[in-house]
Amino acid sequence: MFELKPYIKQKNQIIDASLEKMLKDSLSSETLVRAMKYSLMAGGKRIRPVLCLAACEAVGGGPEDALTAACALEMIHTYSLIHDDLPAMDNDELRRGKATCHIAFDEATAILAGDALLTLAFEVLSSVEFDDKNLTARWLKVIRLISSAAGYQGMIQGQMLDITSEGIKLSADELEAMHRLKTGALIETSLNCGAYLGGADRQQRDQLNTYARKIGLAFQVADDLLNVEGNPELMGKAVGTDSLRQKSTYPSLLGIQGSREFAKKLVKEALQALEPFDKQADPLRAIAGYIIERKR
Amino acid sequence: MFELKPYIKQKNQIIDASLEKMLKDSLSSETLVRAMKYSLMAGGKRIRPVLCLAACEAVGGGPEDALTAACALEMIHTYSLIHDDLPAMDNDELRRGKATCHIAFDEATAILAGDALLTLAFEVLSSVEFDDKNLTARWLKVIRLISSAAGYQGMIQGQMLDITSEGIKLSADELEAMHRLKTGALIETSLNCGAYLGGADRQQRDQLNTYARKIGLAFQVADDLLNVEGNPELMGKAVGTDSLRQKSTYPSLLGIQGSREFAKKLVKEALQALEPFDKQADPLRAIAGYIIERKR
Repeated sequence: MFELKPYIKQKNQIIDASLEKMLKDSLSSETLVRAMKYSLMAGGKRIRPVLCLAACEAVGGGPEDALTAACALEMIHTYSLIHDDLPAMDNDELRRGKATCHIAFDEATAILAGDALLTLAFEVLSSVEFDDKNLTARWLKVIRLISSAAGYQGMIQGQMLDITSEGIKLSADELEAMHRLKTGALIETSLNCGAYLGGADRQQRDQLNTYARKIGLAFQVADDLLNVEGNPELMGKAVGTDSLRQKSTYPSLLGIQGSREFAKKLVKEALQALEPFDKQADPLRAIAGYIIERKR
Repeated sequence: MFELKPYIKQKNQIIDASLEKMLKDSLSSETLVRAMKYSLMAGGKRIRPVLCLAACEAVGGGPEDALTAACALEMIHTYSLIHDDLPAMDNDELRRGKATCHIAFDEATAILAGDALLTLAFEVLSSVEFDDKNLTARWLKVIRLISSAAGYQGMIQGQMLDITSEGIKLSADELEAMHRLKTGALIETSLNCGAYLGGADRQQRDQLNTYARKIGLAFQVADDLLNVEGNPELMGKAVGTDSLRQKSTYPSLLGIQGSREFAKKLVKEALQALEPFDKQADPLRAIAGYIIERKR
């Protein structure tokens, strides 16, 4: 029987050690580096990098093959949280149980720390060591996948839609389209990069894409539910904020019970997409369940 | 006799056409794309991309070899201006004679448009078409050069130092170190990438690096002088702001006359570094003079 908790713990140790190494100390901009580390090492769930590594293993890749991509994805996720929390955006003061970056430091530092983490993601992706020219082409493609998922036709577009649709009632299709950009794009690309770097064939990548789309949406439904009925102490952030901001959410659209059923249906479909895989995909199977059962 | 004005005009046309093509319209985030275009096509001087193309030509490269890098550099420069202008940073309302991005749109849109331009720079750099695997390694290196120059050990570090040193009197060495990061790093990497993509040898790259360091600093001295004695109508932005913010500047350190002489000395040294080059480096020679004679 596969145990998810020790698996995630072990992966998080590898990811954290690697992130620490990537962010070198810089004497002349000590505050900037402290702000970057503060948010990057704030005890995030590391779902995106774990998905990236798990996808790589599911297709038979080695444990280190996707580590740099996993770390870059976490840097991009963290930068997006720092900027989303800013006063001009969601104006959140608490994240992962700690003061958000602009509260712990100041707004200018938070903007720059976010910019710096985004830039560092591409620096580490382009600094991978290789002798083999096939590998240079591979990493260039990973940069293309990640930059396109994180950019104005992906995650940033989703954040823009999220901000501009406050107070507007979205249809189920519009809500799904927004989330697929805002959180889905980076989750999908995490799995996609892991699979690609692990040497997946076409069919494996298609199956994992389906899995990614389903759990990406399930993740958001679960997030919406936690914002209604979650425990703020366990979550380390405020609840009830979606309703205050008049955001369209799954509970407001489908009700609590309807949202839970929708999330379960998505997880079931995600698991079906994994049927062609052997037990090396057990971590991905377990993560699908965890995504809707988590308390934070 | 080489004429700089038509040269810059012709290069700007190529750069602008290429930038327009890179930024596709997106129906679902129309405002975001409008904000990105607003700042990207706001009539900037395009000094960094022109330097990149001119360096490529100086070492015998073709006119298209460095165009993608030139455009990516302009995107990164533009994102840095959008974020620097934000209320939490320099709080500027006018740039290139137009309302700054957060005034023309709003703060959230300006933050996201900046993020999106930074991300797009890496998307275009990783989307270059090639059949030759030597070229993939080359573009990976360009991404490494640009991300490292733009990141927390380069441009962003410089911006952080600029903010935190307001009200503090810097020494000449400290001021030079800050500017070398804040504006120098991206100018140096513009020339470096152009030379590299044009096929420069080791010695050519060393000479161009010296040229880059000298004109990078001369550019900043000229900027400081324009902030004291420039014509706000020609410049399209406010003057006298450095003194109001108690920024350390060359005029405050060396006086007006001393700063002018320092800038001339730097340009002379930049021109000396170009001595081994033939007339293909004439654009670079002319740009060195233009940098300290410009009125905006």
